[in-house]
Amino acid sequence: MERGSPGASRPVEPGPCLSSLRGAEPAASASTLSAARAQPGSRVIAVAAVLPAGGCGERMGVPTPKQFCPILERPLISYTLQALERVYWIKDIVVAVTRENMGAMRNIIQKYQHTRISLVEAGETRHRSIFNGLKALAKDQPDTQLSKPEVVIIHDAVRPFVEEDVLLKVVAAAKEHGAAGAIRPLVSTVISPSADGCLEISLERARHRASEMPQAFLFDVIYEAYRQCSDYDLEFGTECLHLALKYSHTKAKLVEGPPDLWKVTYKRDLYAAESIIKERISHAVCVVMDPKQDKEPVDHFLEALKNELNDVKIESREPGQAGRDIQQSNLEQCYNFVSMNIMMSDFQETRKLLHMLEESNLSILYPVVVVSGEQKLQESLRQGAIIIASLIKERSSALVGQLLVA
Amino acid sequence: MERGSPGASRPVEPGPCLSSLRGAEPAASASTLSAARAQPGSRVIAVAAVLPAGGCGERMGVPTPKQFCPILERPLISYTLQALERVYWIKDIVVAVTRENMGAMRNIIQKYQHTRISLVEAGETRHRSIFNGLKALAKDQPDTQLSKPEVVIIHDAVRPFVEEDVLLKVVAAAKEHGAAGAIRPLVSTVISPSADGCLEISLERARHRASEMPQAFLFDVIYEAYRQCSDYDLEFGTECLHLALKYSHTKAKLVEGPPDLWKVTYKRDLYAAESIIKERISHAVCVVMDPKQDKEPVDHFLEALKNELNDVKIESREPGQAGRDIQQSNLEQCYNFVSMNIMMSDFQETRKLLHMLEESNLSILYPVVVVSGEQKLQESLRQGAIIIASLIKERSSALVGQLLVA
Repeated sequence: MERGSPGASRPVEPGPCLSSLRGAEPAASASTLSAARAQPGSRVIAVAAVLPAGGCGERMGVPTPKQFCPILERPLISYTLQALERVYWIKDIVVAVTRENMGAMRNIIQKYQHTRISLVEAGETRHRSIFNGLKALAKDQPDTQLSKPEVVIIHDAVRPFVEEDVLLKVVAAAKEHGAAGAIRPLVSTVISPSADGCLEISLERARHRASEMPQAFLFDVIYEAYRQCSDYDLEFGTECLHLALKYSHTKAKLVEGPPDLWKVTYKRDLYAAESIIKERISHAVCVVMDPKQDKEPVDHFLEALKNELNDVKIESREPGQAGRDIQQSNLEQCYNFVSMNIMMSDFQETRKLLHMLEESNLSILYPVVVVSGEQKLQESLRQGAIIIASLIKERSSALVGQLLVA
Repeated sequence: MERGSPGASRPVEPGPCLSSLRGAEPAASASTLSAARAQPGSRVIAVAAVLPAGGCGERMGVPTPKQFCPILERPLISYTLQALERVYWIKDIVVAVTRENMGAMRNIIQKYQHTRISLVEAGETRHRSIFNGLKALAKDQPDTQLSKPEVVIIHDAVRPFVEEDVLLKVVAAAKEHGAAGAIRPLVSTVISPSADGCLEISLERARHRASEMPQAFLFDVIYEAYRQCSDYDLEFGTECLHLALKYSHTKAKLVEGPPDLWKVTYKRDLYAAESIIKERISHAVCVVMDPKQDKEPVDHFLEALKNELNDVKIESREPGQAGRDIQQSNLEQCYNFVSMNIMMSDFQETRKLLHMLEESNLSILYPVVVVSGEQKLQESLRQGAIIIASLIKERSSALVGQLLVA
């Protein structure tokens, strides 16, 4: 069992960052948390998370295990870790990976500056991997930096879009009921086939739910369940809530979760995840421009850009200020920079900005210079906004350095 | 009940077309079909399809019902209809749409030149819509062009990626067993909650399956089931196989289906569908070039393009010939045209080709001219291939008419 670099509690993300980018205001989550704290008899809870990541992703039809598949050049699991890291009250995150992927995982932790991560070796099956993670948390000894939590969250490496809100709900429910898990309505009817492959029973869809992640447990409840459960359970079981019920006699509280909790399973899910990430990192644009420029065309351009990008947050900076902010990564939440240069026909400022962005370790940026034509300025500005919006939304690396005419 | 224009048996598609574009060779399917015909005692079967399309798509979180959501500017349902139309042995396709969407549906049929389609009014629920479709097929009268089929396929408007292969399997199984349906392994464990929202039972995932579409039935089996079933079934039921079992005592044969059968339900599914369609229409490229050009750079370019686009089929045409083929839409399966113009520095040929493509009613095309730089030709060709591949894969309309430098 090894420990990742502790580092700062909130890293500078080299890759696109999700949670902070889709209106999950820190304020909101903080208040929800204090609400949870304010529950009768509740106090600050020691919470850790276990993330089984030993799967081989055979259903994906790609050689790479799905949790390591790149999305915008960043491995899927890194988005999931980031989502958990942003929840400051999760003290430790224990990730179970196979021996052959241990090195790759260490590199991911280093490259994306993940913190609070401990690695354990994955088992043959999902349940065995989770059990290994729990064991690491259980031994409350000086030789490890881990200490036994009161509540443990179990999540999947391939569910990158988990939000603080649902984590908070399952943790609070676990504290009260001993176990809790997120559920979703069924999309298809579930049936049970007979031995000869014919329909035996079809279940009433409305009476059943899909059991999703995250789940949370009082540590002793789930750890005891794993200690007592049979080899058959460890080999063929898929459901932690079931183990808690069967071996710790704990009926899990079921919490309705959002659709984005779905599990990245097939190639199409990678496509969907990439589109969701692209959409989420398109919500903030930093427009860098000389304040001495005419206000009118600038406003016209920003208006057009807003029309092209739905609910986009546009902040503008002066060139020098933008540089400082980028270096101090005060613009952590922004992955889109537009340099507006209406009057001057040289690109000095733009070049400076590009250089600074390339130096910085912000998200993968695909800088493209857009030149407005002189005549019909208004029309060019609208066209420019359309082009910029599509560059932001599609992030095609093949266009790096192209000159596009608006 | 109204009938769409019969038209040609195989329309010129104005929109991207799927089945023909992902290696489902007519030859292959024909042989499979004759294999089915060759079954002991079997003959050509009269087959029709019913497509309930009355849903309002509340889960999608968008105002438009999901079956009408555009993908590359073409409504989702049109892809599904196209997939069914390509199976020549499906005689009639009955679509159930709500009264308010009847007009929109008629426009889709006309715009995308769908054939063999009949429209009926959708009911309040999925089962009622299907029942309406079956009634339309049941009345074997002179005043309708529909005649009662031996086997009826029931499919969803929001499962656009259905292939002839699985349709053939369910139809053959239905003929033998009376009913058949496609199934998939469960992705999540299914649980049944108690009244107080706690875990009651969790089902063993390996013993259950998700019931998907398409399904097929001997017409009399499913029609009788619908005639006899209760109002409760029609209101709250979700599973046709269940009705066949309960009211016609017919145990459906379950057929393992491919993952692409999944049902477009959430916004992320639209993202996934769009990516799949983009990928599928990127598999064929028609390179138009003057045969008098140097062979070597051309070959180098085509090689580079092949490296960028996985398993792409590249056919080359001379300018004049390409023009004729486009006009006669002999290139129906191709949505990607690259005009190579290495030596000449004017764009006359390219302009001609563009004009012809714009005139033709082929798929939405986003023509972009790529100019290779003079020096380091080899490198430019590689760069050009990278740019062209990304244009083909991403199809960004915002880049129309741009000049990109390789």
